Amino acid sequence: MASTKMILDLDTGVDDALALALAVCDPRVDLIGVIASYGNTLMKTAAQNTLDLLHLLHADEVPVYLGESQASTVNDFEVMPISKAIHGDNGVGNILLEKSPRSIEKESGIQFLINMAHQYQDELVYVPTGPLTNLAKALQIDPKIAQLIGNTTLMGGALTVPGNVTPFTEANINQDPQAADQVFTAQEHLTMVGLDVTLRTLLTKAHTKKWRDLGTKAGQTYADLMDYYIDAYDNLGIDHRGAALHDPLAVAVAIDPSYVMTISLNMRVTHDQKTKDYGRTIGDRERLLEPTTTKVAVGVKSERFVHDFMDFMIAVLKN
Amino acid sequence: MASTKMILDLDTGVDDALALALAVCDPRVDLIGVIASYGNTLMKTAAQNTLDLLHLLHADEVPVYLGESQASTVNDFEVMPISKAIHGDNGVGNILLEKSPRSIEKESGIQFLINMAHQYQDELVYVPTGPLTNLAKALQIDPKIAQLIGNTTLMGGALTVPGNVTPFTEANINQDPQAADQVFTAQEHLTMVGLDVTLRTLLTKAHTKKWRDLGTKAGQTYADLMDYYIDAYDNLGIDHRGAALHDPLAVAVAIDPSYVMTISLNMRVTHDQKTKDYGRTIGDRERLLEPTTTKVAVGVKSERFVHDFMDFMIAVLKN
Repeated sequence: MASTKMILDLDTGVDDALALALAVCDPRVDLIGVIASYGNTLMKTAAQNTLDLLHLLHADEVPVYLGESQASTVNDFEVMPISKAIHGDNGVGNILLEKSPRSIEKESGIQFLINMAHQYQDELVYVPTGPLTNLAKALQIDPKIAQLIGNTTLMGGALTVPGNVTPFTEANINQDPQAADQVFTAQEHLTMVGLDVTLRTLLTKAHTKKWRDLGTKAGQTYADLMDYYIDAYDNLGIDHRGAALHDPLAVAVAIDPSYVMTISLNMRVTHDQKTKDYGRTIGDRERLLEPTTTKVAVGVKSERFVHDFMDFMIAVLKN
Repeated sequence: MASTKMILDLDTGVDDALALALAVCDPRVDLIGVIASYGNTLMKTAAQNTLDLLHLLHADEVPVYLGESQASTVNDFEVMPISKAIHGDNGVGNILLEKSPRSIEKESGIQFLINMAHQYQDELVYVPTGPLTNLAKALQIDPKIAQLIGNTTLMGGALTVPGNVTPFTEANINQDPQAADQVFTAQEHLTMVGLDVTLRTLLTKAHTKKWRDLGTKAGQTYADLMDYYIDAYDNLGIDHRGAALHDPLAVAVAIDPSYVMTISLNMRVTHDQKTKDYGRTIGDRERLLEPTTTKVAVGVKSERFVHDFMDFMIAVLKN
């Protein structure tokens, strides 16, 4: 079976770290690069975290690129206190990772994405798990990539459930609703994996104990990372039963769409700050009768996903 | 084939008038009664409109009952200006209907619903196309009907598209969000047919011309009614292409669910007036992992529906 050319776009981030491990491990994926984003942490921190995690996972061949360091509409970015509470001050649960011997690539992540879209076209799968600023910027430079990229599966948004920042807004979309609207109204072959499904995929300390019990450095580190996140979910009252596998679910769906049930819907993202529903991912009234370009995950086979996720994680963490 | 025992709950209303005609005509339906609601017009006006329309449709055997005349949380009700603009001052496009020789039933509509729920149980299909005040009241008096009624298919709400009163609120839900929340959190075997699908089913004057061309009083009257509604949709900028078949779609789905694609989701309705999203039909975060009691229509075979709807309407209007 030919492997899928995948680019991740991560604001690494605890669940981004899990998404990275899943993409590194799955034999159906050829991870050709990671673009860093701001969001759960600063963009440059996300890039360094990604490099260091790839080193930990014995995947030093995967290049890491810098993306945009703030939303398309502003000039700076500060990590939200809630992000620090969930992901730690350094984005990776305040765990001190061993520094990678490698450097970040010189080429911009935006240009890398554009180049790969032209090179691989239908074969390319792009998975952004943070704000959609990088893709929106790439679309502005080269609108053709809207049709070129084979599949874009994003983690973000909330259609059938309330948001996690406001009743309407999910955290990734909230960082840059204007960029998200550009993506939702332009990008073809788009799949949204939002809170609708990710809130139904929970990991517990019973799961992370299995990683720790592997007795490896990677197993220990990932268990520590994830336990920090599970504790945050519990302490902040987000969910006392476990922590949601937001970003790894997006990677899994990008590889195997049968994990989720989707509906076809043309969507937009409200980004007028004067409206009550700023940052809402919602059906586009104007394009309700038009052919659809977006699929939205609204149901998930969570037991099967968590089971498969654990199998892959144990495979990658045991070395 | 055994026919379905159906109760309609109408705030009659132009599209309620269409729903009534569809239920009268479809041989699969045994319309055992209609309960009147406030909403598009005053409750008592809705009751009289229903009686008069049944007379026009040669269906004088169907009893009509009075329901609640205002929302569960207030003491009066005034028809909204937008409702008058869409449905006419008298609810039926300012058309003067011939008075029915019959009277409205003495028994309350709420008690009728409760009695029929016990008598017919699984066989009973209840279709409210206005506010959910009557069902909420019945549930308060006799909570057992939540399990007894075989199927409740409501027209109302908006899950994947913006509302038509606010960006979050659909008109029927907006009348009494508290009652709607009681229904969504208690009633089993519930199907929501909301703006998600009804906005995709449009009727035009090319369709109503076929009714008018029948040369019957019923054909002429229904064409006049619907043309008023189509003009209102056009003049108010709701849709210039045609007018949505909100209420008849709910009746059709109650008879044949294959007209729509549904997702299973436990929902609630926000009814705290202090929140931004008052009157929103949205997934219930607290019951996201629980077995589901509600189905929400998110896709519709609109061409098939409009085709079948026209066939039924021509059959009922030709006499």
